[in-house]
Amino acid sequence: MSNFWGRIRGPPEMAFKKVFIVGVGQIGASVGLAIREKRLAREVVGLGRRRKNLALARRRGAVSVAIRLRSPADLRRIPFEREDLVVLATPVATIRRCLRFLSPIPLVIDVGSTKERIVQEAWRRRLRFVGTHPIAGTEKDGAGAGDADLFKGRLCLITPTGRTDRRDLGRVGALWRAVGAQVERISPARHDRLLSSISHLPHALAYSLTAAVAAQVGGRAMARYPLAGLRDTTRVAASPPSMWAEIFLENRRNVLRGLRFFDRELGRLERMIRTNDRERLLEWLRRAQRVRLRF
Amino acid sequence: MSNFWGRIRGPPEMAFKKVFIVGVGQIGASVGLAIREKRLAREVVGLGRRRKNLALARRRGAVSVAIRLRSPADLRRIPFEREDLVVLATPVATIRRCLRFLSPIPLVIDVGSTKERIVQEAWRRRLRFVGTHPIAGTEKDGAGAGDADLFKGRLCLITPTGRTDRRDLGRVGALWRAVGAQVERISPARHDRLLSSISHLPHALAYSLTAAVAAQVGGRAMARYPLAGLRDTTRVAASPPSMWAEIFLENRRNVLRGLRFFDRELGRLERMIRTNDRERLLEWLRRAQRVRLRF
Repeated sequence: MSNFWGRIRGPPEMAFKKVFIVGVGQIGASVGLAIREKRLAREVVGLGRRRKNLALARRRGAVSVAIRLRSPADLRRIPFEREDLVVLATPVATIRRCLRFLSPIPLVIDVGSTKERIVQEAWRRRLRFVGTHPIAGTEKDGAGAGDADLFKGRLCLITPTGRTDRRDLGRVGALWRAVGAQVERISPARHDRLLSSISHLPHALAYSLTAAVAAQVGGRAMARYPLAGLRDTTRVAASPPSMWAEIFLENRRNVLRGLRFFDRELGRLERMIRTNDRERLLEWLRRAQRVRLRF
Repeated sequence: MSNFWGRIRGPPEMAFKKVFIVGVGQIGASVGLAIREKRLAREVVGLGRRRKNLALARRRGAVSVAIRLRSPADLRRIPFEREDLVVLATPVATIRRCLRFLSPIPLVIDVGSTKERIVQEAWRRRLRFVGTHPIAGTEKDGAGAGDADLFKGRLCLITPTGRTDRRDLGRVGALWRAVGAQVERISPARHDRLLSSISHLPHALAYSLTAAVAAQVGGRAMARYPLAGLRDTTRVAASPPSMWAEIFLENRRNVLRGLRFFDRELGRLERMIRTNDRERLLEWLRRAQRVRLRF
């Protein structure tokens, strides 16, 4: 055992025997690369459905071993130990499904963009669980987009509850700090409300704007006039649909609430334009600009 | 005269005696810097309302002479000659006002983001006019944001009509090419329809999103969690309100039409989320993603 800790940098409470990453997309692969670079585990095992992506994760060094899962139920066959960490990095509905097939033996975390229903499911199953959400990643998908530095200087929200084991919580916070993230605690419910506004709403609009412009002038015209404003406003519409369909549905109530806030402002703008209300329009734009300039 | 052309690079039809830039914001100052760098005119004169900005334009070398205008009517006092070029680079409603106080002597162009009403006004006044729209610039404002390379590799839409003088049109095209732009011709009406979708709509949404997030979580929370998605989606909401109020009102009919296209798609998304319609949601997101990936 001393031999094992000896090979790991940093205090022992950060380190794990094996880390199992379920879903080696951009975030999962980045976790693997960062953990291997910092030597925070003896072995990093990648698990997933897509053979090609698993092979890519292995070639890129994000995982040292790859295991193909046909479905989350296959997780029952993995012999997890107490010193192991399981990182669930699939789309959010699949994270909840995975939780059903895990035992309370290993420490389990997820990296999903929604937290409330995932945390509830983990407690219903009495798992050793800590919900986390590293706020990092781009619109890109797959192990090829993995990056050992993805979490450097980025925020990682951690959502403990009254039932979270303090030692496990400490280990998870130390892990995220070790890969460069700034850790902040927030309740699962507050997390989902906050993210519905600052993340899920912008994504909803980027997809809708892309669809609207394609309907109005055609995708070809859009590609022909690559204006910087349009490019930036729609950038996140290139994000994986399977991931975002699940986020929108998983956080439905909050997302719909965010859309109502947006509809109200858009309706205001529409009215001011229709009625040629230059003064109020100018004031409304100034207020929005002031907020944006503080960003 | 040979002495004058001798000091100017490129064919003589590109070059002007004096260039008067009305409004030395980011675009106007960039025109001045590029023209002076390429020596396309003997003198570049900046005209505008704000003393501080005029002084800044002169210090940065965007103009060699600055003249303060109290209002567009002051343009009547400027002794323009036939070899001069006037570049109207103010917000669009002001461009139309300026046209009322110009004579048919100099060649006049504008760089506004809308074209139909501006071109109409110019013809009503029988000016020597060519409407242009260099698609360049960032959310920044003022002469300080001027950049001699701003137009390099960027598109400049030129909107001639049946009444445009062919020689003037050629000179204007050559001018924009000389500062690095790719020139494309389009009718004023088509320009305004196209831009309402690919430019004015994204700006409308960026302002509305900023207002909505500020209303829901507060501007402070927004600045505290500077997510890349939110940052990019709202970037253009930092653009000058005075410029955008005028664009929205000037191109009202097309902007409202663009908003209807957007409302339809957003309504679709809202319904699919509300009814938990995973299959159609996924298909709709995939379609938008495909369009965005071609961008």
